[in-house]
Amino acid sequence: MENKLRLLLDSIRPPSRGSAASGLARLNDLTKPPGSLGRVEDLALTLWRIQGQRPLKADPARIYTVAGDHGVAAQGVSPYPQEVTRQMVLNFLAGGAGINVFCATAGIDQQVVDAGCLGETFPPHPKLISRRIKDGTGDFTQGPAMSREDCLRCLLLGAELAESAAAEGLACLGTGEMGIANTTPATALYCAFLGFAPQDIVGPGAGLAPERLAHKSAVIAAGLARHSAVITANDPVAILAALGGLEIAVLCGLILGAAKNSLPIVIDGFISTSAAAAALAMAPQARDYCIFSHGSAEPGHKLVLEALKAAPLLDLGLRLGEGTGAALAIFLLRCAANMFNDMATFSAAGVSGPGSS
Amino acid sequence: MENKLRLLLDSIRPPSRGSAASGLARLNDLTKPPGSLGRVEDLALTLWRIQGQRPLKADPARIYTVAGDHGVAAQGVSPYPQEVTRQMVLNFLAGGAGINVFCATAGIDQQVVDAGCLGETFPPHPKLISRRIKDGTGDFTQGPAMSREDCLRCLLLGAELAESAAAEGLACLGTGEMGIANTTPATALYCAFLGFAPQDIVGPGAGLAPERLAHKSAVIAAGLARHSAVITANDPVAILAALGGLEIAVLCGLILGAAKNSLPIVIDGFISTSAAAAALAMAPQARDYCIFSHGSAEPGHKLVLEALKAAPLLDLGLRLGEGTGAALAIFLLRCAANMFNDMATFSAAGVSGPGSS
Repeated sequence: MENKLRLLLDSIRPPSRGSAASGLARLNDLTKPPGSLGRVEDLALTLWRIQGQRPLKADPARIYTVAGDHGVAAQGVSPYPQEVTRQMVLNFLAGGAGINVFCATAGIDQQVVDAGCLGETFPPHPKLISRRIKDGTGDFTQGPAMSREDCLRCLLLGAELAESAAAEGLACLGTGEMGIANTTPATALYCAFLGFAPQDIVGPGAGLAPERLAHKSAVIAAGLARHSAVITANDPVAILAALGGLEIAVLCGLILGAAKNSLPIVIDGFISTSAAAAALAMAPQARDYCIFSHGSAEPGHKLVLEALKAAPLLDLGLRLGEGTGAALAIFLLRCAANMFNDMATFSAAGVSGPGSS
Repeated sequence: MENKLRLLLDSIRPPSRGSAASGLARLNDLTKPPGSLGRVEDLALTLWRIQGQRPLKADPARIYTVAGDHGVAAQGVSPYPQEVTRQMVLNFLAGGAGINVFCATAGIDQQVVDAGCLGETFPPHPKLISRRIKDGTGDFTQGPAMSREDCLRCLLLGAELAESAAAEGLACLGTGEMGIANTTPATALYCAFLGFAPQDIVGPGAGLAPERLAHKSAVIAAGLARHSAVITANDPVAILAALGGLEIAVLCGLILGAAKNSLPIVIDGFISTSAAAAALAMAPQARDYCIFSHGSAEPGHKLVLEALKAAPLLDLGLRLGEGTGAALAIFLLRCAANMFNDMATFSAAGVSGPGSS
């Protein structure tokens, strides 16, 4: 597995199918003042650099909502009971969650991945990918969240999902997750990868009471202390295994696999961004395949995005996860592709440019 | 016409079909942490207060792109020649502009209104509403942009469009505009209605060179000086007639008509917001029908939105107008409606709430 991961990382090249100059020339030939569609133009350029041919494609698009449970939930870092992970997977499959509604509204395919939930395996469902690596992680204050082997399995599973998506003809992927307590491992990963202290970026997640935040910070600090040797050694896989989550590791692999397959990947919120931080620690050259959808209401998210030099598209106070922010951003990506493909040019439309009267 | 306007203004009531408490109760019963969909939940509440019954509806939606020419263009306040207004109307009708692509992508109906372009009238087209009030405004540095009668005609035309849309069953309207030089009258209106000085909020519009901004400020200041008695008298119709644009006045009427007909109206960018400022000066109780789509790249826009106590949904560096920002926000409104209507409740989905384990 180590070798497979090495091959994956080595196969990732920065996007180069379209040059920035040729993309910009096209954008500036369209009937609008140059740059007047702002970030939507940036998105078109991102797609152009990845795809390099017209029509640019954002569709078909698919969001993977990857679910896993967390041993660290035992430390009382979430107000929700752990069985909610499982209940929400069933809700995803029944079509009743926020991500279902947003994907249906935006015309995005949705797949749910059981990467590590607790309890019985789920009955088969067309939307479900049952690939449980482990029944929840271990409590990272007591030991590693998962073994290196399980972490590699997660990474390769994510990469395999991206590979299959590319083979199916998907044009764009999005990340989403479900896992009670998973802002805790995400925060720990930011501390390990980006050098934050827990109290700088800790937040309420799904709704932890303010008076419990110091406890959550202390739990994260305990995890960082326990795994300090791993963090110092700076091996991203080992850090992800020690402090991460099964769903986070699968999403990390999905991001790497998307980059390998020249697929843009739209990153959802606080948890998904920790998968991106891990992926970029392993393969910085995957950066320009990542589209950061939104800055969430989780207070640390914007600091983390800044540290990653990522300017999120949306700022809507979202803090649900599941891929909901990614779904909204995929709509913007579709607008960008269609704008690039379908707008008239100045010459074709007989529209005068500036100062040309 | 004065009487018709008075009747219109008097007929507008704040939204009250659904109570905030009942809307919030529904939102908090859906399978997500309370408030975790942020601004999308706010949008659902806005719709609920306006509509008060499920299913909430954002569709069918229509954007009116209203076009008009500006006498003040003669003062050299835009880098684009005035005939671009006309050329862009033809581009809208041919389907080649940014707003066409965004409306097509978002499934929004689009109508183009000639409220006051220069040159020959346009040939009939299914998307075109030919209701030219006047062949462009007068130069407001030399006299009023339009007569009070023409301003009233514009306002009543806008209201009539909203009335027809309501009768047709539209559930949501959006504003858009085209008019070379129209950031100049919009800026003048902000100064008159909100007390800004021209230099505080003047900006490049479609791309005026930085060294020309002082000139643009001076042109606006000259207009404000010329019409200072009107501004002091504080009659919104007279101010709109003196400094506005035909398309801006029609959009003002559209906003008032939407409010009268209990239709949410999504406000586009810098120019559209000036129509909203005028509408709210005439009927402050129309406020909660207005959804401010985005803060544009025009530097004064965010200051103006703050002055209007409006928190825009998007911040994507857009500065095209036409209704492009409104189109993106209507997609968010649709997500909000579907979320409110279609998400499962905690009890129905068998999902545990916080602290219920």
